[in-house]
Amino acid sequence: MRRLLAACLVSLAPLAAMAQQVTHFTLENGMEVVVIEDRRAPVVTHMVWYRAGSADEEPGVSGVAHFLEHLLFKGTDTLAPGEFSATVARNGGSDNAFTSYDYTAYFQRIAADRLDLVMGMEADRMVNLRLDEADILTERDVIIEERNQRVENSPSALYREQKSALQYLNHRYGVPIIGWRHEMEALGLDDALAYYTRYYAPNNAILVVAGDADPGEVRALAEKHYGVIPANPDLPPRARPQEPPQLAERRMTFRDPRVSQPYVSRSYLAPERDSGAQERAAALTLLAQLLGGGQTAVLTQKLQFESQIAVQVGAWYSGMSLDSTTFDLVVVPAPGVTLAEAEAAMDDVLTGFLETGPDAAHLERIKSQLRAQEIYDRDDASSLARRYGAALTQGLTVADVQAWPDILQAVGAEDIMTAARDVLDRRQSVTGWLMAPEVTQ
Amino acid sequence: MRRLLAACLVSLAPLAAMAQQVTHFTLENGMEVVVIEDRRAPVVTHMVWYRAGSADEEPGVSGVAHFLEHLLFKGTDTLAPGEFSATVARNGGSDNAFTSYDYTAYFQRIAADRLDLVMGMEADRMVNLRLDEADILTERDVIIEERNQRVENSPSALYREQKSALQYLNHRYGVPIIGWRHEMEALGLDDALAYYTRYYAPNNAILVVAGDADPGEVRALAEKHYGVIPANPDLPPRARPQEPPQLAERRMTFRDPRVSQPYVSRSYLAPERDSGAQERAAALTLLAQLLGGGQTAVLTQKLQFESQIAVQVGAWYSGMSLDSTTFDLVVVPAPGVTLAEAEAAMDDVLTGFLETGPDAAHLERIKSQLRAQEIYDRDDASSLARRYGAALTQGLTVADVQAWPDILQAVGAEDIMTAARDVLDRRQSVTGWLMAPEVTQ
Repeated sequence: MRRLLAACLVSLAPLAAMAQQVTHFTLENGMEVVVIEDRRAPVVTHMVWYRAGSADEEPGVSGVAHFLEHLLFKGTDTLAPGEFSATVARNGGSDNAFTSYDYTAYFQRIAADRLDLVMGMEADRMVNLRLDEADILTERDVIIEERNQRVENSPSALYREQKSALQYLNHRYGVPIIGWRHEMEALGLDDALAYYTRYYAPNNAILVVAGDADPGEVRALAEKHYGVIPANPDLPPRARPQEPPQLAERRMTFRDPRVSQPYVSRSYLAPERDSGAQERAAALTLLAQLLGGGQTAVLTQKLQFESQIAVQVGAWYSGMSLDSTTFDLVVVPAPGVTLAEAEAAMDDVLTGFLETGPDAAHLERIKSQLRAQEIYDRDDASSLARRYGAALTQGLTVADVQAWPDILQAVGAEDIMTAARDVLDRRQSVTGWLMAPEVTQ
Repeated sequence: MRRLLAACLVSLAPLAAMAQQVTHFTLENGMEVVVIEDRRAPVVTHMVWYRAGSADEEPGVSGVAHFLEHLLFKGTDTLAPGEFSATVARNGGSDNAFTSYDYTAYFQRIAADRLDLVMGMEADRMVNLRLDEADILTERDVIIEERNQRVENSPSALYREQKSALQYLNHRYGVPIIGWRHEMEALGLDDALAYYTRYYAPNNAILVVAGDADPGEVRALAEKHYGVIPANPDLPPRARPQEPPQLAERRMTFRDPRVSQPYVSRSYLAPERDSGAQERAAALTLLAQLLGGGQTAVLTQKLQFESQIAVQVGAWYSGMSLDSTTFDLVVVPAPGVTLAEAEAAMDDVLTGFLETGPDAAHLERIKSQLRAQEIYDRDDASSLARRYGAALTQGLTVADVQAWPDILQAVGAEDIMTAARDVLDRRQSVTGWLMAPEVTQ
């Protein structure tokens, strides 16, 4: 309750002016450093982000970025396999890592006085990783099992994978982060080392430290641990194959006997947030909220409450992406409603929205929610660390991140309509039906 | 008429026994040589085939294989730009080149006593090409104009391009041979030279000489011109990313105001001819003939003659492909018939065929036509040269090419049904509608 009140009180102040104490600098070897001070508890989050994700892989070795992420928990010259995480845990901390299309990131959350320790270990595995064939065989089984669990066992996950492959005609966002199974099965030591040697270097990394940390002390530690690692002079420019014009509306039907709840989803190719030019992405962010964000959203109102055609609807857009991303819609039909009927109803709502535009009060309510959300988010140093790390690996700057809340607030109804007319173009879309197989009579 | 009679007379003899005099050997540097003797006229076809096509390109430089094919007509150390073709023409010959997914080939047809001349020039440009930035700028305009003519000006070509991109989720066959326009516009000298240096080498090439040529003399000339070129020790293994399981049926609708005749087409992912294992591909070859090859084919009979739903139908399959290929169907509806009706009618015919199987007499007639066709084809040394060159760049051997006619003849009705049930799986298919835009009332 106190938080809600605080949100209301600050809602009139420009949001950018409220930015945390964020310090940003670059080491001589090209490694960027972001320090987010939050001294309320003697804890730090230490993250290293590499500007290298699955979309930076070579063709034919899908999954190698994520595979390498696993392998970074094997040994180095001075650390035995598993010793990294064991050391963090022994010191009362936790650690993990994650891989996406545009980045791979490693993090630890630990007592502030252990920053030196984790930084030393993280810098060590940036360049001193030691892998052998046995590591490959063991860990490859692990990632294949991870694929079994997360993808093969889930019709929705398989559906999303096939759908992404249809959304992108040329870009590697069409290839799953975890990898195509047949390519994962063939991943070898050479593949992992090639990716490691090419991308793991200080001039391709961003250090983010959030929490009880003094920028001057972080700089001294960063110079001590990371500053001594030479830049990789052969780091390739980051230019992935871009999409050609998408000229033909696409559809797919995925049938799986394990599907109990069918649904229809639609994705449109959409622009991402670009440095210094985030306005279109801001308009799309609001559009997604207007269409599918919560109980008062247009799709929710029309399809769940009025016609009761749907039991669930959604609209999503995240502009956090280095290259073109998607604007996504989903409608889960009520019992007895076919996917064709659900889809037609969804399209009717879109058509109506494109004619009438957003309700002014609704738009204001969403902006106010976004302001409140922004305040809440700032309460969590780890989530801020993640926000900056993701942004800096996806082509944005610290200034872009700090400008974003005000850019969202400045979006007008006409901006949203322009963005909607641009993006909701069926020629750039994939419509998917997830359903159980037809019953043969 | 005499030809038809001849075809009938030979129809009982095993076709393999009738193979032309084909000589095959390999030079010490790894260059393969195929000589097809046909001494009826004092003319030779001289071809060099590279095991490198558009599907061997790096991501982001689509079109570079074809671009380089154009650039090979620029100068070398000893030939001025354009001098190659001018010299061929001055000697009464003709020359050209072509690029596909799996190969790039150069050929000349010329008086037999000029073989030494063209071989010398072809060997020269295999390694001595000299290109500068001016060549790139000029020729890049030429290939972009070629794309304008062949693709941008043709709704059908644009449709096929978008459809191929949907057919392949991972393999580079989804990228057009001529290239995506935005990538063609960025092709540079470095891209062309990288492809040239990597792939243009005797150990990645096949020489085919067909016509009035003695194998011993061809060998001597080949050793003189090509044998002196060192093999490229860095030639990469030819392993492209393969398809993951295709699990979801796909559809697309391409609308273009220039479309006057709409149609529906369907392509299924299908296996290619593999060395020593061509039986499935043979069954699919016959299946395409049964369904859509000529006036007595099943689709033609049912849709053009009986229901008159279609004005044209077709079925195609060519197993000549290094990796997975497609089995294709098309139905062009009669006036007043919708694409939905045409597609439903096509699917009814397929369902019926899968239940009843082929008519025995129809199958025999097709085999007999294939035998006759085989005889006719052997009459054309240039087309034989092309057949061997394509086969050897697509993973087949001389023995595979020679075995193929008999393998086709040995296909039984059950083989066809097994192949049909395997391949005509909607989950591996893309169905496309090409049509004019909807008229807004």
